[in-house]
Amino acid sequence: MLPFASITIIGLGLIGSSIAHGVKASMPTARITGYDADPSVRARVQELGFCDDVADSAGAAVIDADLVLLCVPVGAMAAIAADMAEDLPEDAIISDVGSSKGNVIASLQAALPRARIIPAHPVAGTEHSGPDAGFATLFNDRWCILTPPDDAQEGDIERVRAFWEKLGANIEIMDAKHHDLVLAVTSHLPHLIAYTIVGTASDLEDVTRSEVIKYSAGGFRDFTRIAASDPTMWRDVFMSNKDAVLEMLQRFSEDLTALQRAIRWDKGDELFDLFTKTRAIRRRIIEEGQDDAAPDFGRSHE
Amino acid sequence: MLPFASITIIGLGLIGSSIAHGVKASMPTARITGYDADPSVRARVQELGFCDDVADSAGAAVIDADLVLLCVPVGAMAAIAADMAEDLPEDAIISDVGSSKGNVIASLQAALPRARIIPAHPVAGTEHSGPDAGFATLFNDRWCILTPPDDAQEGDIERVRAFWEKLGANIEIMDAKHHDLVLAVTSHLPHLIAYTIVGTASDLEDVTRSEVIKYSAGGFRDFTRIAASDPTMWRDVFMSNKDAVLEMLQRFSEDLTALQRAIRWDKGDELFDLFTKTRAIRRRIIEEGQDDAAPDFGRSHE
Repeated sequence: MLPFASITIIGLGLIGSSIAHGVKASMPTARITGYDADPSVRARVQELGFCDDVADSAGAAVIDADLVLLCVPVGAMAAIAADMAEDLPEDAIISDVGSSKGNVIASLQAALPRARIIPAHPVAGTEHSGPDAGFATLFNDRWCILTPPDDAQEGDIERVRAFWEKLGANIEIMDAKHHDLVLAVTSHLPHLIAYTIVGTASDLEDVTRSEVIKYSAGGFRDFTRIAASDPTMWRDVFMSNKDAVLEMLQRFSEDLTALQRAIRWDKGDELFDLFTKTRAIRRRIIEEGQDDAAPDFGRSHE
Repeated sequence: MLPFASITIIGLGLIGSSIAHGVKASMPTARITGYDADPSVRARVQELGFCDDVADSAGAAVIDADLVLLCVPVGAMAAIAADMAEDLPEDAIISDVGSSKGNVIASLQAALPRARIIPAHPVAGTEHSGPDAGFATLFNDRWCILTPPDDAQEGDIERVRAFWEKLGANIEIMDAKHHDLVLAVTSHLPHLIAYTIVGTASDLEDVTRSEVIKYSAGGFRDFTRIAASDPTMWRDVFMSNKDAVLEMLQRFSEDLTALQRAIRWDKGDELFDLFTKTRAIRRRIIEEGQDDAAPDFGRSHE
């Protein structure tokens, strides 16, 4: 039993193309229609062949869909939803993969007031972007969070759940506000900090860019990975989840100031206590299968 | 031609044990004597067998050495140097692997005023600690920075260089003050920030520890790796390289405040410009062989 027979993916970057590959692998009889606002991406997807059909407009893409997945930056959701409004079949379910949910739900409900909207956020990704970056196993054993609005129908939620489970994801349901707070700390704040430190390091007068690169194995290089993520996507996330991001940033800054003070006044014990506590979190992430136990992320060292 | 025939390693954690494995692999006729202040580490090293001999005191460990490598936390350097002062052969070279250099050199020169000291810092490591964590290829294609004092003899520098090259490292020579500034940004600041954010995330009232762990694949888990590094080692690094760390921290905080302001006032362009610039740094790190090109550090996704 397929949860959906005709799936339209709008936005064919890393996440959209990974979903398409995942559908091909786990639901091979489902029909996939793709659309991307960028004509060069549409042409590339034709070559790569992971969609059965690539449409020339959002409206044409959705006309036969029973699931429409919006995989565009969160700042582009409102416009693309308005574009397809007239052509959207009445019984189609609209979902998305946006990293923030409160704002996205408001945009989609405004643009598509009668649509059956079940927002989703698969917590998975890599630092690579574009239609060549996708792969079928991206969502394996990752969490996909559904944030259905209060008036969502139980049957619609269950179909979206079944869809993501077929892609290998585990499902959690929570309200959009809580999602936005949780993801502010597990995803948005880490990205903001990584972008910041990479910027700080590249603007120094007394340390050359070349030195920063040569000695990056001391820790810095870990931050450059997520600071290489898609700029449009992340700009939109911070604009869209502003309140929760600012709240987490404030807490982080306070904690950093406390450590700064401990260093200035030689309070080694305070540092030691924190550094001991943080080890336990890493251990639990590995125990729960959310990261690899291999040292150094399994980098080869050969 | 071996640069050194008799090598003593004081401190048998990740770095000390990796050096021993590397010597066994690349200089198999060299004799390795090990010592660690912790009797349980000494016993474990006897079992693991990567030292030819495990001594019961620092003095006994160095008595026949022509190279003594101090692989202890930087805060422990002064005491261990004093311990071995009487037994150190006149022609032995003393080196170390400390992550900060100015303070370490001052400590060693004070404790061993007539010794031939060639300080070194191999920029390599994993988040694992202890004698079981070491492996021979840890230093392959990583940089090892030598910071010889002004009165160091050229021949001594060349022997230490040859030693590290045999372990696979590339060598750079710089003065200690510059080293401490460069490493403050490429290593110390990243560790401090990683420890901070992991602490911030585990102290929230409205987001549970379990949620932080489940959704850590959104970016947070990358930070937990270096926040799992050895607490004693890192406490000492921040105490020892205080001035440079505080300077870098100040710059980072200013940059973070600027981003915070951009988010608050909806200045998406400022965010986008920074996020585009930081991508280029990642690209260069990969081009110069300091990280893997595989997406997501090569994590498996299976």
